[in-house]
Amino acid sequence: MKKIMILNGPNLNALGTRETNIYGSDTLSDIIEYTKKEAAALGAEIEAYQTNCEGEIIDLLYRAREEEFCGVVLNAAAYSHYSIAIRDAIASVKIPCVEVHLSNIYAREEFRHKSVISPVCVGIISGFGKLVYPLGVKVLCEM
Amino acid sequence: MKKIMILNGPNLNALGTRETNIYGSDTLSDIIEYTKKEAAALGAEIEAYQTNCEGEIIDLLYRAREEEFCGVVLNAAAYSHYSIAIRDAIASVKIPCVEVHLSNIYAREEFRHKSVISPVCVGIISGFGKLVYPLGVKVLCEM
Amino acid sequence: MKKIMILNGPNLNALGTRETNIYGSDTLSDIIEYTKKEAAALGAEIEAYQTNCEGEIIDLLYRAREEEFCGVVLNAAAYSHYSIAIRDAIASVKIPCVEVHLSNIYAREEFRHKSVISPVCVGIISGFGKLVYPLGVKVLCEM
Amino acid sequence: MKKIMILNGPNLNALGTRETNIYGSDTLSDIIEYTKKEAAALGAEIEAYQTNCEGEIIDLLYRAREEEFCGVVLNAAAYSHYSIAIRDAIASVKIPCVEVHLSNIYAREEFRHKSVISPVCVGIISGFGKLVYPLGVKVLCEM
Amino acid sequence: MKKIMILNGPNLNALGTRETNIYGSDTLSDIIEYTKKEAAALGAEIEAYQTNCEGEIIDLLYRAREEEFCGVVLNAAAYSHYSIAIRDAIASVKIPCVEVHLSNIYAREEFRHKSVISPVCVGIISGFGKLVYPLGVKVLCEM
Amino acid sequence: MKKIMILNGPNLNALGTRETNIYGSDTLSDIIEYTKKEAAALGAEIEAYQTNCEGEIIDLLYRAREEEFCGVVLNAAAYSHYSIAIRDAIASVKIPCVEVHLSNIYAREEFRHKSVISPVCVGIISGFGKLVYPLGVKVLCEM
Amino acid sequence: MKKIMILNGPNLNALGTRETNIYGSDTLSDIIEYTKKEAAALGAEIEAYQTNCEGEIIDLLYRAREEEFCGVVLNAAAYSHYSIAIRDAIASVKIPCVEVHLSNIYAREEFRHKSVISPVCVGIISGFGKLVYPLGVKVLCEM
Amino acid sequence: MKKIMILNGPNLNALGTRETNIYGSDTLSDIIEYTKKEAAALGAEIEAYQTNCEGEIIDLLYRAREEEFCGVVLNAAAYSHYSIAIRDAIASVKIPCVEVHLSNIYAREEFRHKSVISPVCVGIISGFGKLVYPLGVKVLCEM
Amino acid sequence: MKKIMILNGPNLNALGTRETNIYGSDTLSDIIEYTKKEAAALGAEIEAYQTNCEGEIIDLLYRAREEEFCGVVLNAAAYSHYSIAIRDAIASVKIPCVEVHLSNIYAREEFRHKSVISPVCVGIISGFGKLVYPLGVKVLCEM
Amino acid sequence: MKKIMILNGPNLNALGTRETNIYGSDTLSDIIEYTKKEAAALGAEIEAYQTNCEGEIIDLLYRAREEEFCGVVLNAAAYSHYSIAIRDAIASVKIPCVEVHLSNIYAREEFRHKSVISPVCVGIISGFGKLVYPLGVKVLCEM
Amino acid sequence: MKKIMILNGPNLNALGTRETNIYGSDTLSDIIEYTKKEAAALGAEIEAYQTNCEGEIIDLLYRAREEEFCGVVLNAAAYSHYSIAIRDAIASVKIPCVEVHLSNIYAREEFRHKSVISPVCVGIISGFGKLVYPLGVKVLCEM
Amino acid sequence: MKKIMILNGPNLNALGTRETNIYGSDTLSDIIEYTKKEAAALGAEIEAYQTNCEGEIIDLLYRAREEEFCGVVLNAAAYSHYSIAIRDAIASVKIPCVEVHLSNIYAREEFRHKSVISPVCVGIISGFGKLVYPLGVKVLCEM
Repeated sequence: MKKIMILNGPNLNALGTRETNIYGSDTLSDIIEYTKKEAAALGAEIEAYQTNCEGEIIDLLYRAREEEFCGVVLNAAAYSHYSIAIRDAIASVKIPCVEVHLSNIYAREEFRHKSVISPVCVGIISGFGKLVYPLGVKVLCEM
Repeated sequence: MKKIMILNGPNLNALGTRETNIYGSDTLSDIIEYTKKEAAALGAEIEAYQTNCEGEIIDLLYRAREEEFCGVVLNAAAYSHYSIAIRDAIASVKIPCVEVHLSNIYAREEFRHKSVISPVCVGIISGFGKLVYPLGVKVLCEM
Repeated sequence: MKKIMILNGPNLNALGTRETNIYGSDTLSDIIEYTKKEAAALGAEIEAYQTNCEGEIIDLLYRAREEEFCGVVLNAAAYSHYSIAIRDAIASVKIPCVEVHLSNIYAREEFRHKSVISPVCVGIISGFGKLVYPLGVKVLCEM
Repeated sequence: MKKIMILNGPNLNALGTRETNIYGSDTLSDIIEYTKKEAAALGAEIEAYQTNCEGEIIDLLYRAREEEFCGVVLNAAAYSHYSIAIRDAIASVKIPCVEVHLSNIYAREEFRHKSVISPVCVGIISGFGKLVYPLGVKVLCEM
Repeated sequence: MKKIMILNGPNLNALGTRETNIYGSDTLSDIIEYTKKEAAALGAEIEAYQTNCEGEIIDLLYRAREEEFCGVVLNAAAYSHYSIAIRDAIASVKIPCVEVHLSNIYAREEFRHKSVISPVCVGIISGFGKLVYPLGVKVLCEM
Repeated sequence: MKKIMILNGPNLNALGTRETNIYGSDTLSDIIEYTKKEAAALGAEIEAYQTNCEGEIIDLLYRAREEEFCGVVLNAAAYSHYSIAIRDAIASVKIPCVEVHLSNIYAREEFRHKSVISPVCVGIISGFGKLVYPLGVKVLCEM
Repeated sequence: MKKIMILNGPNLNALGTRETNIYGSDTLSDIIEYTKKEAAALGAEIEAYQTNCEGEIIDLLYRAREEEFCGVVLNAAAYSHYSIAIRDAIASVKIPCVEVHLSNIYAREEFRHKSVISPVCVGIISGFGKLVYPLGVKVLCEM
Repeated sequence: MKKIMILNGPNLNALGTRETNIYGSDTLSDIIEYTKKEAAALGAEIEAYQTNCEGEIIDLLYRAREEEFCGVVLNAAAYSHYSIAIRDAIASVKIPCVEVHLSNIYAREEFRHKSVISPVCVGIISGFGKLVYPLGVKVLCEM
Repeated sequence: MKKIMILNGPNLNALGTRETNIYGSDTLSDIIEYTKKEAAALGAEIEAYQTNCEGEIIDLLYRAREEEFCGVVLNAAAYSHYSIAIRDAIASVKIPCVEVHLSNIYAREEFRHKSVISPVCVGIISGFGKLVYPLGVKVLCEM
Repeated sequence: MKKIMILNGPNLNALGTRETNIYGSDTLSDIIEYTKKEAAALGAEIEAYQTNCEGEIIDLLYRAREEEFCGVVLNAAAYSHYSIAIRDAIASVKIPCVEVHLSNIYAREEFRHKSVISPVCVGIISGFGKLVYPLGVKVLCEM
Repeated sequence: MKKIMILNGPNLNALGTRETNIYGSDTLSDIIEYTKKEAAALGAEIEAYQTNCEGEIIDLLYRAREEEFCGVVLNAAAYSHYSIAIRDAIASVKIPCVEVHLSNIYAREEFRHKSVISPVCVGIISGFGKLVYPLGVKVLCEM
Repeated sequence: MKKIMILNGPNLNALGTRETNIYGSDTLSDIIEYTKKEAAALGAEIEAYQTNCEGEIIDLLYRAREEEFCGVVLNAAAYSHYSIAIRDAIASVKIPCVEVHLSNIYAREEFRHKSVISPVCVGIISGFGKLVYPLGVKVLCEM
């Protein structure tokens, strides 16, 4: 079975309670459960993490390499827009990362239009709510 | 059955022959055939178009509305980066559009990082080769 | 009688059905009829066109010169913001053009604040709904 | 009868003597007389002011509200390009203002292309010489 | 008793009638009365002015120096964003000025995020409605 | 009694020892003690934290929500200028936050003039030394 | 014999009648005739096209590839400044293109100084009137 | 005798008391007296004004024209950096204006490096203290 | 003996395994060992740290002050480009810091050309591989 | 016979040895010899210079005027991008100059896309290797 | 007697022959003669140089220091706009320099509005033709 | 023995006399002597040059190649910030160059933060006074 890490950044702990008009009413665990089911159907196993700390996201990316995950579905949330440190980590680990966002970041404030991690990810899926997670898993399963 | 339009913009006629290191070796018809099969499994029917003309993309978007398509998977290619006219057409027809790109546009030249149509599309899927078409179809089927 | 061309660009075919909070509920033919009446009172005759294609707008401007129209009321819509080709056509035909917009383009998104055709038009009338057409005609009749 | 204020900003006192290639040879009183006639035909009454002082333009806008003018034709001249104070006054009084300019400001120096008051006016009429005043009156009469 | 000037700039005359969702429903005199009471409790005496004219704000700042006010609570409103003349006056008079704004200027339009007078004021209090005036007074009383 | 959190970001641990010409000679505990006294007079109870870690500031904001603080006085220090993650946390927790800075950030280096958290705070108080803390508490008590 | 396509974009149909101070008094057919003679002397055969439509320029570039032209002399006129679609077509067909302009585009308005197609052409010849066409042919003959 | 106006803008009333390290310790009347003497030697007569109001500077420029001054030595101070209204007045009156500044504006803050009135003045003299006034007079006497 | 801290930021844990074409094949411990030897020859003792967390870098800088290190050789890696918090910590601790980078950051992507910590470091050494560490030590030994 | 100067700027002395993938393997003398032959066929005589010194290029342009050359083929190399002094010399001598570059400067680094001398040259030929010299000569012979 | 150097940069050798509409018809020696006479009346002695070479201007500034000139009237012409090397030389020699320009550089092309040497000169005199030289001398005599 | 060139650009002749607070009190010969000693210890021989002329720096770089120096320690001073010509020479000679600056250029004026030669040098050492020369020599000796 393929091992895929789902890595969630800052404020995603608050999903389902926070700005539900933008992010929907599912909590993060709802979404992870839903994604695990979809992944199982594709023959993939999910391990999921959430942290508000930039440095821990980097640590988790290195763990993904050490534990031989075949890919990462990464929702770096706000850090996507300025964390060159996470960008360098993605480039360093060389495991394929798919960048995902629940909302369409290009339809929001100007400062969310730029993601510094996009250039080192395989690609980006943004704007389809919780569906972005299983889509990200599907991409990694097809590689 | 859900009727979905796949609308391809300029230079996509040259797929499979052009810059295959970036775009892969499948021709556009290969990709359409592949997508039709995936769509069928999801209970969707595909109609596909390609044109190099900005005005015709607009005309086709209006046809999608008149003929009651339930969504459009739109690869506007180079026009994504400057065609405010296509942007206005998407906003006008009010049918959900999913923006797709074969390559990761954020990993290429600076001028490809900005898509003027992103803010009026449901979302964007960019960088996974031909896989972006069935992913786009899946999104529209789940709406 | 003075012969005046009314030339409408992309997405104006959708008037009356599209974003009516911005553009009002009249269709393009309603507006043309209304303008013809106002024009008649000023001793002017109207010929009206609409196209979604940038190249055809250019072709129509040259036809206006060949058929000796005394002026053009031009609503280039989205093309106003980037079509240097239309700008060059206006400068080339040397027939007076009045730039019009139904909505106040300076009260909308930043990218609509710049019109590349303004500098080669006689002037601009923007933001008064369908009234901009007869006002444009009036300007041309007074020249 | 509709009561309309025509409010003229800095340097318009010099009309007819100043840069006549740009602004024409009519004096401001010539233009006001001409506009009053056109207004009368539309059933409107004009009161006209000119001042070189930013603060007095603001005061006059509040007087327009107090004396229940139904609209203002505002040629704020140079102040259009930087007076956020006048912009706020227009937004505050809530009487419809039509922004007018004798010359086509978009065909002149770069710094004249931006008007900070445009977004809070109903619309803009720019570039048709003295004709912009009766056109502005007509717009207000049709509201 | 400490003598403190409260100096209000353009459009603040319209408080309580203008955009009450942003500025609240108190009139300027309501606010001055309220502030005077709070000031009295702190042993300070208030003199308040309002003018729409940039030059008069400068004149009043010099009067504050001549009449030996111990500080100025300055709401320069729109002039905050471009009046280098007022900035120079503040630097010139050397009386401590506290910049205040009723609304949070950093949560509004981009052009309101920059205040050219901030660097020469002691500090800034922005966004707490009428409360900003007594807070400004308190700061001056503690100096 | 109202429960208010005072949350201090990076390098504020060094207060009283660091650049005292800018920040004054009080240590952080001095300031907290001083603020607690002022708060008590207003019927408010203070809990104070300091951390150099961006992620922990986010965690503390969520704790403020869970433990039903009625507001946060937030001195995010350097993170104010780039931490979109903290910005999103503030927007997410929906507890009123007052942004404070000991120094007048608009009178310092250009890069300190922009605070990315200002637009989601109730307002900002900047430049009055330790006084900004009790002023922030007062604002929250009046809400 | 070498087969070379001369491809002319928008408004070049108006040559000889339009802004003759900038573009000279030869019509497009005059120029083509003149170029054909020069080409014959170099052993090359010319096929010439003009269109105002961006999409047709792209179509003609693909025809050049299919019909095995050995090169294209391309005067994309106004489209040079924004048509990323034409740029992509040039990169896609892989036939050498020489970019030509009758006038010196770097001596004109700022917006004409940037050509988005230059980076994918072999080189550029700009500013020598009709002479640019035979010079372009000569370059292609020497390759 | 030649009649020359010396026109001083905002905050110059405070000369001799304000930031003497930048502007010197002479009051404005000291400087005017000194300039009158120098002017007399050149056969010129001085009339001097100071106002903090932008609109009055404009009014005074028109008075200069009406009263047939042969030139204006203009120290517009802070207004130099943004008053397009004063710029237009200078262009309108067509009397030669010499722009002067006591300090070297190019050696001060970035925002003082740009003078919007420079392009319509004969020239600029900046940075030599009170000497700039008689130098300006000398220029006008030599014209 | 002089006590010098070598402080390494994010992703430097991956040295020797990551992008070896840019960073060389030595691991971080190899480099630290090598530097310790060079330092010993200069009479200096090294203590080395690595962390992916911005906040911990700040904490370590304060520890350097408390434990009376005579200087820090700081490779803040990606954080160099945006961490104003680290910049403030360097300014706060007042221990001399030498900024080092293994690669020549000015020969890489545009966003790596700007280091926000450079202005508060003694100086910068960038681009000579592992040699930058002993060079940094040498600088601190000579101070 | 027409006398034409070929003027080469900095680093062109190194042709044939330097970056041959960009500039080809011919030395500067090879290229001059080749150009002389082509020129002879057109009835023109060549005098060629190379210097690394900006000032000497200016001196040589004045010599061209004094010695009545009918034109200059100028490869100013790196100076093209910033030497306003050379630009002014070209404008001053009034001899027609053709700007040439061996490589396509618009296909290279961003900073090479701007040539400050282009606006005062007759035109530009860039990107065809050594061929640009005889093409430049041909242009001058046709004038 | 005071010894003053007049130092002229590139293309000023061409005065009187070059663009006389901008620079007037006097040659450089005419101007120097004229200035010497004016200087004599002020008790100053002139030594004048002209060179097209940036490095020689620097050398001459150091000679001015060595030979104890009391000041330099510097017309650095085009180099004013980019020569940081000359700027550093002026700052280094510490002799007062007066920057002069024959034409009003702020009324010309945008790129001439910025002088990198202004901040290190005593001041600037620009736009009064040859008169700028004796004015510059007068300034130095009054210091 | 390794032969290393030390190449100094404009104004470095003035070292020890100029702005000693920034550059220290050693003269250039002091520094060269000091560096020669340090170099000797590393088995390297120094040849040192200083010139104020951009062209001569380029000539000296070519001489370094011809005379087979193994490297250049280059302090291009002010030319570092704009001399693309020197940049091209460094790229052309292919001898390793180490960029050095006595002061920390990133701690000075904004325009000194950008060095156009950095990307083609091996690396940069900036800010440690005269120590930068022997450090540069050491780097070249280790290559």
